[in-house]
Amino acid sequence: MTCIFGNELFFTSYFAVKKMTDCQGDGEGTMSPMELFEKLNAQGEKVRSLKSAKAEKAEIDAAVQLLLKLKVDYKQMTGQDYKAGCPPSENLIVSNNGPAADDCDGEDLVDPWNVSASSTKGVDYDKLIVRFGSSKIDKELLERIEKVSGQRAHHFLRRGIFFSHRDMHQILDAYEKHKSFYLYTGRGPSSEAMHVGHLIPFIFTKWLQDVFDIPLVIQMTDDEKYLWKDLTLEECHRFTVENAKDIIACGFDVNKTFIFSDLDYMGASPQFYRNVVKVQKHVTFNQVKGIFGFTDSDCIGKISFPAIQAAPSFSSSFPQIFGGKKDVPCLIPCAIDQDPYFRMTRDVAPRIGLLKPALLHSTFFPALQGAQTKMSASDPNSSIFLTDTPKQIKNKVNKHAFSGGKDTVEEHRKYGGNTEVDVSFLYLTFFLEDDEKLEKIKEDYTSGALLTGELKKILIETLQPMIAQHQERRKQVTDEMVQQFMTPRPLNFKF
Amino acid sequence: MTCIFGNELFFTSYFAVKKMTDCQGDGEGTMSPMELFEKLNAQGEKVRSLKSAKAEKAEIDAAVQLLLKLKVDYKQMTGQDYKAGCPPSENLIVSNNGPAADDCDGEDLVDPWNVSASSTKGVDYDKLIVRFGSSKIDKELLERIEKVSGQRAHHFLRRGIFFSHRDMHQILDAYEKHKSFYLYTGRGPSSEAMHVGHLIPFIFTKWLQDVFDIPLVIQMTDDEKYLWKDLTLEECHRFTVENAKDIIACGFDVNKTFIFSDLDYMGASPQFYRNVVKVQKHVTFNQVKGIFGFTDSDCIGKISFPAIQAAPSFSSSFPQIFGGKKDVPCLIPCAIDQDPYFRMTRDVAPRIGLLKPALLHSTFFPALQGAQTKMSASDPNSSIFLTDTPKQIKNKVNKHAFSGGKDTVEEHRKYGGNTEVDVSFLYLTFFLEDDEKLEKIKEDYTSGALLTGELKKILIETLQPMIAQHQERRKQVTDEMVQQFMTPRPLNFKF
Repeated sequence: MTCIFGNELFFTSYFAVKKMTDCQGDGEGTMSPMELFEKLNAQGEKVRSLKSAKAEKAEIDAAVQLLLKLKVDYKQMTGQDYKAGCPPSENLIVSNNGPAADDCDGEDLVDPWNVSASSTKGVDYDKLIVRFGSSKIDKELLERIEKVSGQRAHHFLRRGIFFSHRDMHQILDAYEKHKSFYLYTGRGPSSEAMHVGHLIPFIFTKWLQDVFDIPLVIQMTDDEKYLWKDLTLEECHRFTVENAKDIIACGFDVNKTFIFSDLDYMGASPQFYRNVVKVQKHVTFNQVKGIFGFTDSDCIGKISFPAIQAAPSFSSSFPQIFGGKKDVPCLIPCAIDQDPYFRMTRDVAPRIGLLKPALLHSTFFPALQGAQTKMSASDPNSSIFLTDTPKQIKNKVNKHAFSGGKDTVEEHRKYGGNTEVDVSFLYLTFFLEDDEKLEKIKEDYTSGALLTGELKKILIETLQPMIAQHQERRKQVTDEMVQQFMTPRPLNFKF
Repeated sequence: MTCIFGNELFFTSYFAVKKMTDCQGDGEGTMSPMELFEKLNAQGEKVRSLKSAKAEKAEIDAAVQLLLKLKVDYKQMTGQDYKAGCPPSENLIVSNNGPAADDCDGEDLVDPWNVSASSTKGVDYDKLIVRFGSSKIDKELLERIEKVSGQRAHHFLRRGIFFSHRDMHQILDAYEKHKSFYLYTGRGPSSEAMHVGHLIPFIFTKWLQDVFDIPLVIQMTDDEKYLWKDLTLEECHRFTVENAKDIIACGFDVNKTFIFSDLDYMGASPQFYRNVVKVQKHVTFNQVKGIFGFTDSDCIGKISFPAIQAAPSFSSSFPQIFGGKKDVPCLIPCAIDQDPYFRMTRDVAPRIGLLKPALLHSTFFPALQGAQTKMSASDPNSSIFLTDTPKQIKNKVNKHAFSGGKDTVEEHRKYGGNTEVDVSFLYLTFFLEDDEKLEKIKEDYTSGALLTGELKKILIETLQPMIAQHQERRKQVTDEMVQQFMTPRPLNFKF
């Protein structure tokens, strides 16, 4: 296996976290490739007919999920991508190209494009830590962060929303010795509409920047969105500018923050391109296939893109900020689904003489409908958008927020609600900063003293002013300010 | 097949021009994958022992050639790359991933990294035209070029050195209607040393530019060389600058010519990167696998590189020259081994709303040792280098130039020499402009009146002043001039 895959660091791959059908005894393990092909044809047909019959969204979603799962199984069984009308060929690779399918306990699929969990509680993050080979943010690390920064830890840290890390101790060790670092985070601008979940990394990054007083670079992967979506370059670039306004509205300091569009910055920085090419030279197709699940039918742009998300992890990609220094450590706050990019980056870094970035991983922000999936910017009812009116917020929460309460008031009073799956409560863990208040809500909901409607009301009254204030701040963001943030330039730091 | 390969335009692929072992009845067709694997192991061992015993170069070369051939056969038979220590797996793809192996008459291997011919006359170019699907430069086209340009055709055209084309008639049609076009050629700067063969495209491009009076862009693919060779980025970039001096010494006009390093221009032109990404979105790994023979073990940089060589075919990659116009036609003079890049480009162009480039293809410049292989910049005796002294030129020609003469003076006088394989004569077809003189030499050599030593003397006396003059002109090229040529800027043309 190693002679094909080359690098054991990649063992925690795309495949290793997906549901392993063959291990579940549901009968598919004994199917022939042709039988699976036919099952896929039938499922594709079913999805099409549900869509044309305008069936319930939930029903379509379930059918699509099954279709996707079957496709992954098919690829694994045959080594080929499923394509309607092209039956499997006679001579098959029986899974000798992918990592061994010996990990049967996983049921969550987590990669940069897919997140799905089998439990209503969402993804099992403790298992992810083990699989991804990262470290839990424990009490000791929390206390160290507080000690070194001299600040109380952000509630995202206290509440386990940022729950996993790589090399955070090294960042703190160096910082204690007065060696600075920088922050790198990003966004894929796939539409104009951002929802509250998209703010999580930025809210947290702003806090990190404030307490450590360090430079921040924010990558807008408009090239990625162009490669993955049915969008034009112009659309992707426009989404970059619109999304940048929402990011700036989080309160970033223009003197400490550089926001860049890949489409622009690649064409403005020979040093950035040099780092991209360095990474590209040291990663093979076999590796990105193992990490990201790419196939031979994927375009060459997707295949080489991971290098572009890797490059900002190196300070030499920003000579205007770091004066050409290539050893300024990088800390990346991001959702855990982005980790595959940085596992790859950390593997490559020492081979090109550069520092491995450190990471802080967050859990996923749940969709209103429940914690099983990541939200979708294309489904307006799946979350609260940054453009929603107070009335829309109220209606969405009341109508769509998955409840952990009981079916009747009587039952609820008697047995209490379940805060672990209640989306309104989960949202409050993100946005209600007051620990005591949150604890009280938990107690009352669990005991049954607080009804679902009342809990929803608390959430609505938390979100409405928060979103209104965001909209107010966003209005203040002019095109000139965006231009300023996005111009390559020195920041207010000496390196 | 089409459902895997997607596009029939790619039928003339890497595989289709290589020697098809299975069809030759030499026994390899009946080997099992494991037997072929063992034969490869043995051959690898042989190459290593020849090298460590410092055997004759010719013997090592022959052993390496066989090793490479066996590797291609192995890949085709098993769908896997040969890797020492990793025997073929049980379940094989029996050539269902590549184009059909039904073309048995080909014996020449021609792609951007490999050229080898079975005949001492070199590659069979008529067969290449058929396989690549290009058109022969016939008498009619020659006369049209002379008519439209108002100039006698360059001797490279008259003598069939530029022998094949794509869409040259459309370029001339448009030019007759006063619609201009531009020229694009390039060089992969893999070392400081350039040999006379490297000048061929530049000598010819200069002539085209002079007679048509049009802009020229010259791409230095330093990123490609970094990806393919064991070189640093700094070395590749330095070779770009050094090679640019030799190119400038060919006499290009700075007001009409833009030379660019990929490493620099990618980081200086958002429009260039946008075209690269557009191409990258529309080409799959399956396609580049078929065209260039890439494998899963290749790095992702190589896999996506073809888009970077494609992008300069579109005028929108150079807004500073063409004022943002995206419909200025492009004509690419290049050696035929570069055609795979532009077959791919021509396939993609209409799908991204851009014009297909036209092409003029040259034959290969033969190595001193014979026309079977392309020259190597790493073997000082394989060609005349632009830095050679008159004495070195004399020694190399006398010692290494493959002779088509007979073994003894008596036999030579009686039977005459063979100009078709005589490298000195072949070199004269490139560099002796006087048609009558060349014809006389041919007659005399064929009849036996001219001896090999005398023929070599004529070549030496042609090359010595030519190289000396080149060296003189190169000395005049300052770093400032290189800088000027390589600065993105408008040229002296209105679009």
